[in-house]
Amino acid sequence: MKFVSIIIGSKSDYEVMLECSKVLDKFGVLHELVISSAHRSPERTHAYVKEAEEKGARVFIAAAGMAAHLAGAIAALTIKPVIGVPMKGGAMDGMDAMLSTVQMPSGMPVATVAMGKAGATNSAYLAMQVLALEDDDLKIKLEEDRILKAKKVEVDSSDIEIKL
Amino acid sequence: MKFVSIIIGSKSDYEVMLECSKVLDKFGVLHELVISSAHRSPERTHAYVKEAEEKGARVFIAAAGMAAHLAGAIAALTIKPVIGVPMKGGAMDGMDAMLSTVQMPSGMPVATVAMGKAGATNSAYLAMQVLALEDDDLKIKLEEDRILKAKKVEVDSSDIEIKL
Amino acid sequence: MKFVSIIIGSKSDYEVMLECSKVLDKFGVLHELVISSAHRSPERTHAYVKEAEEKGARVFIAAAGMAAHLAGAIAALTIKPVIGVPMKGGAMDGMDAMLSTVQMPSGMPVATVAMGKAGATNSAYLAMQVLALEDDDLKIKLEEDRILKAKKVEVDSSDIEIKL
Amino acid sequence: MKFVSIIIGSKSDYEVMLECSKVLDKFGVLHELVISSAHRSPERTHAYVKEAEEKGARVFIAAAGMAAHLAGAIAALTIKPVIGVPMKGGAMDGMDAMLSTVQMPSGMPVATVAMGKAGATNSAYLAMQVLALEDDDLKIKLEEDRILKAKKVEVDSSDIEIKL
Amino acid sequence: MKFVSIIIGSKSDYEVMLECSKVLDKFGVLHELVISSAHRSPERTHAYVKEAEEKGARVFIAAAGMAAHLAGAIAALTIKPVIGVPMKGGAMDGMDAMLSTVQMPSGMPVATVAMGKAGATNSAYLAMQVLALEDDDLKIKLEEDRILKAKKVEVDSSDIEIKL
Amino acid sequence: MKFVSIIIGSKSDYEVMLECSKVLDKFGVLHELVISSAHRSPERTHAYVKEAEEKGARVFIAAAGMAAHLAGAIAALTIKPVIGVPMKGGAMDGMDAMLSTVQMPSGMPVATVAMGKAGATNSAYLAMQVLALEDDDLKIKLEEDRILKAKKVEVDSSDIEIKL
Amino acid sequence: MKFVSIIIGSKSDYEVMLECSKVLDKFGVLHELVISSAHRSPERTHAYVKEAEEKGARVFIAAAGMAAHLAGAIAALTIKPVIGVPMKGGAMDGMDAMLSTVQMPSGMPVATVAMGKAGATNSAYLAMQVLALEDDDLKIKLEEDRILKAKKVEVDSSDIEIKL
Amino acid sequence: MKFVSIIIGSKSDYEVMLECSKVLDKFGVLHELVISSAHRSPERTHAYVKEAEEKGARVFIAAAGMAAHLAGAIAALTIKPVIGVPMKGGAMDGMDAMLSTVQMPSGMPVATVAMGKAGATNSAYLAMQVLALEDDDLKIKLEEDRILKAKKVEVDSSDIEIKL
Repeated sequence: MKFVSIIIGSKSDYEVMLECSKVLDKFGVLHELVISSAHRSPERTHAYVKEAEEKGARVFIAAAGMAAHLAGAIAALTIKPVIGVPMKGGAMDGMDAMLSTVQMPSGMPVATVAMGKAGATNSAYLAMQVLALEDDDLKIKLEEDRILKAKKVEVDSSDIEIKL
Repeated sequence: MKFVSIIIGSKSDYEVMLECSKVLDKFGVLHELVISSAHRSPERTHAYVKEAEEKGARVFIAAAGMAAHLAGAIAALTIKPVIGVPMKGGAMDGMDAMLSTVQMPSGMPVATVAMGKAGATNSAYLAMQVLALEDDDLKIKLEEDRILKAKKVEVDSSDIEIKL
Repeated sequence: MKFVSIIIGSKSDYEVMLECSKVLDKFGVLHELVISSAHRSPERTHAYVKEAEEKGARVFIAAAGMAAHLAGAIAALTIKPVIGVPMKGGAMDGMDAMLSTVQMPSGMPVATVAMGKAGATNSAYLAMQVLALEDDDLKIKLEEDRILKAKKVEVDSSDIEIKL
Repeated sequence: MKFVSIIIGSKSDYEVMLECSKVLDKFGVLHELVISSAHRSPERTHAYVKEAEEKGARVFIAAAGMAAHLAGAIAALTIKPVIGVPMKGGAMDGMDAMLSTVQMPSGMPVATVAMGKAGATNSAYLAMQVLALEDDDLKIKLEEDRILKAKKVEVDSSDIEIKL
Repeated sequence: MKFVSIIIGSKSDYEVMLECSKVLDKFGVLHELVISSAHRSPERTHAYVKEAEEKGARVFIAAAGMAAHLAGAIAALTIKPVIGVPMKGGAMDGMDAMLSTVQMPSGMPVATVAMGKAGATNSAYLAMQVLALEDDDLKIKLEEDRILKAKKVEVDSSDIEIKL
Repeated sequence: MKFVSIIIGSKSDYEVMLECSKVLDKFGVLHELVISSAHRSPERTHAYVKEAEEKGARVFIAAAGMAAHLAGAIAALTIKPVIGVPMKGGAMDGMDAMLSTVQMPSGMPVATVAMGKAGATNSAYLAMQVLALEDDDLKIKLEEDRILKAKKVEVDSSDIEIKL
Repeated sequence: MKFVSIIIGSKSDYEVMLECSKVLDKFGVLHELVISSAHRSPERTHAYVKEAEEKGARVFIAAAGMAAHLAGAIAALTIKPVIGVPMKGGAMDGMDAMLSTVQMPSGMPVATVAMGKAGATNSAYLAMQVLALEDDDLKIKLEEDRILKAKKVEVDSSDIEIKL
Repeated sequence: MKFVSIIIGSKSDYEVMLECSKVLDKFGVLHELVISSAHRSPERTHAYVKEAEEKGARVFIAAAGMAAHLAGAIAALTIKPVIGVPMKGGAMDGMDAMLSTVQMPSGMPVATVAMGKAGATNSAYLAMQVLALEDDDLKIKLEEDRILKAKKVEVDSSDIEIKL
């Protein structure tokens, strides 16, 4: 069993990260989603990451805001790719969380995506791009998705465009 | 042949991104490194990405500064994971490049790492973490590297520590 | 036929950029408006810019937010003047889009205006100032508009002013 | 006589804006360059803009830093396109000058380019793109310049590239 | 007749700057308030400043947002003290206007106060502190106001304070 | 009597700082709460700090926004630990108050916590951590609170988690 | 005796604020300059402000960096105009000091000028503009200075200008 | 044995944090100083904090830069007061580290001081202020230090002051 593990730092991040779960569902990608905090439950975080890795987690997605240590704490526990989604809402409305997430020490990268819902969606795509390296069905689905996105632009344009 | 493809937007980014190449060399990971610009040579960029993908590129690493469109332009051309390294030196000394790199539209993520040399190094690690999902030798090397890093902390501390 | 070509990166930018179209309409200036994305439909963007240029586009106006590559991608495809309108809504609420738009490499400028509706309006004026170099009727209309704007200040003031 | 008029706000901006003059010289484009300040010599600024316009100035380029009012002050005096180059060195090292330059009221746009030398160079290119609408020789030179820039990328890459 | 002259750059700034007028009224200080724009009506601004100065304006208060050139343009026209009130609403929600206002060239200071209503109120106080150097009645009123403000703190505290 | 002294700079900060008082109440920690301003009532501030210190204040908590001098003014009056809570609402929505609070001269630290309600809550916890060094009952309560917080994470997760 | 009182928060600000003193000397304006800190010597600051006011101080100029409370502390002690000069060097290299200085509570304005040497110079000019309301000799000197500044622009331009 | 425990995240922070150790030495305060990283050696960090607490650590001081998780990771392990010193050098030159340090979840405060050497010094003072609550000798030393600091201001001023 190969799956994506989503860890969110607080219940308040759930609504945003549900987008990530929905995208994975849409593409039929197995995943787990749990709440665990780097600060409030560091032991639980440690135990879950080890357990998930043994069960087959291939990629971790971590979402946190404010001081946003969660993705980094997970990256320190595993050599699997860790994707960080900075949550909005801190002193700099997400820029702080982004910098807390992205500026990791040498050898422990966090693959950072955009903040908030845009990042939640793209964290799922990035995880799928990694899984697709070993999964041709998923690869084809991702390629089809690109074609649909390009067609969507044409359709959107045709609704409003002004041509001479 | 599975390899990492590094594309840099300008000759001036070469010195920084050489770090990325060196880390991959140290772990014995095959890679290419070319200069191609999203703006000055869009056709060359398109051709190279297609060519590299066919030759076996599993992960792309793109480095650019200022308006920093390169990683995004590559992400639009492939569904392979694309890692973006923002270069310092623009109006906000790299923050601008980071936001240009990370804020991609839905479905076309760029896995962003820190700016400058720190990011160059970690882009190599992140690429290797992806490759290690299919490569047990590399996995073991990455795990050993973690142990060395922890030991390095102890050694560093012993040089200067004050204990009661 | 000489006209202004407006390209917007996403349907969500339409309402803002409608202001640009309205200003051009008010001055009787021919223009097209289409949706095309630098990332989601790069081939469509390429094709449209070439087609528009052949049909007589003299100035391009491009509107995009977030990583905001659209204006730059167009500037890489043409030597016609390209005006960039940064959209609000990213991590820095438009400042990110502005820096993505304005910091172009040497030889491929984007004439950047303010973000959001203010920029949408002024992108139309800037395009008209360029067209007016070859169009005396438009030149006179722009000069009259300046006089009206100055008179409007007087009228506004007379409503509320306190004089001794 | 059709020419580009460059106005710089202070002697200290001369070295940077010399780049602009050099680019115009390289393409054989006529231009003037004077110092005049929005604050220290408002009357001189007014007189020069009117005089230049009568002599044939088609585009104005204004460079200023700090509170950076010069481009806006010129844009208030003419309906010719005005390009603003924000100088580095203020409280936000050019971001302040950029926002002072770009956020003009409705109907009085300033076509803003990047700050510092990069902007100085691109202000010349933007001015030439406007002039090339009426000047086929210049148009051809600009198209050739694009080809050279793409070739330069290839040459740069060949010096350092790593290919498998 | 000695009075304070308030100039606002746009009708949209009126509501905020009415606070300034109200404070002056409360202390019985003569003042004018007009709309005039640095960009849309530069000649009107010039004429009004000269006229006001001749009629007895001792201090100018200028309020503008966005590129916020008004206070600086007035400071270039007079050696009377000019107080600048940055309006909120630009790309950096007033920080841009503040930096446009405060970073004046040598010899032409603008006495900058906080942005928005807080600044509108304090621009009136600052103007009165200048007038009070020549007006003992006003001086006494300002001293009494300080005592009232200190008393207000005690009263506010007594409503909610928790004492052991 | 050992207690925590809370001083708020303005009535408008009361609602936010009530959180601090509530946390202290929940843990049964004695405290005072008064309004006093560094600028509007400097003498009252001085008198209260001296009085509170004599009555047994062990830690001061000061909350202020904008120029946010209150915590620093108190830190200059006492060698008891002073905790600063930056209020939101200024030009940088609290970042300005945070920097005004935290950047104290050598020898007069202010222990700064996050801005707004999050900081109000944590200022209470930080004060209790200091008091708990001398108070074993409080120490046990704080340790129990940590266990509850970790359990809360588990409960929150169980509501929404997706497990394979 | 009417004079300007300059108070600097630390010896390290002396070199910058010497510019202020030099400008006042050049115009023959009496002034004092002392070091006193809002935090390290609040009683000395209080005593000096009262003493200076009695001796004839008409305007205070205060320079401080970092948390930059000095100008505000003085503004709380006097109703004379207080000019604040933010020093560079803090977390935001002077922007923090500027916001600490300018965002004063209602009724206690600080007339803020630019940071660093530019502000030191303009604080002197602003103080002189206030004094010139009562001093015709100084008024004439300031008017002459403006004429010299305008002439300087012409001379500067003649050294480098390119005219067609 | 009651002591202060200083933990630094990397050897590169040693020179800055030596200031902290020196201040504690000057006041005769017992302390330890070790290197341990939240990411590179999380187990070592955990073990050391527990060991230090048992040996008598009353206050922890943690210094880290970039993503700056160290102080927060320690605060999650203990209910002793934790003081965080943000290091300069990241994308926002310390502001990022400050926000990573200060924005902790409810119940796990980090007492944040200024970044860099200024913070290193003040972290020592803050720790001593906490220890002085139980240590009258230290209290007296801190009070004497304040008097010396005030006298230092007088001496500094006498070197350069200009009095009328």
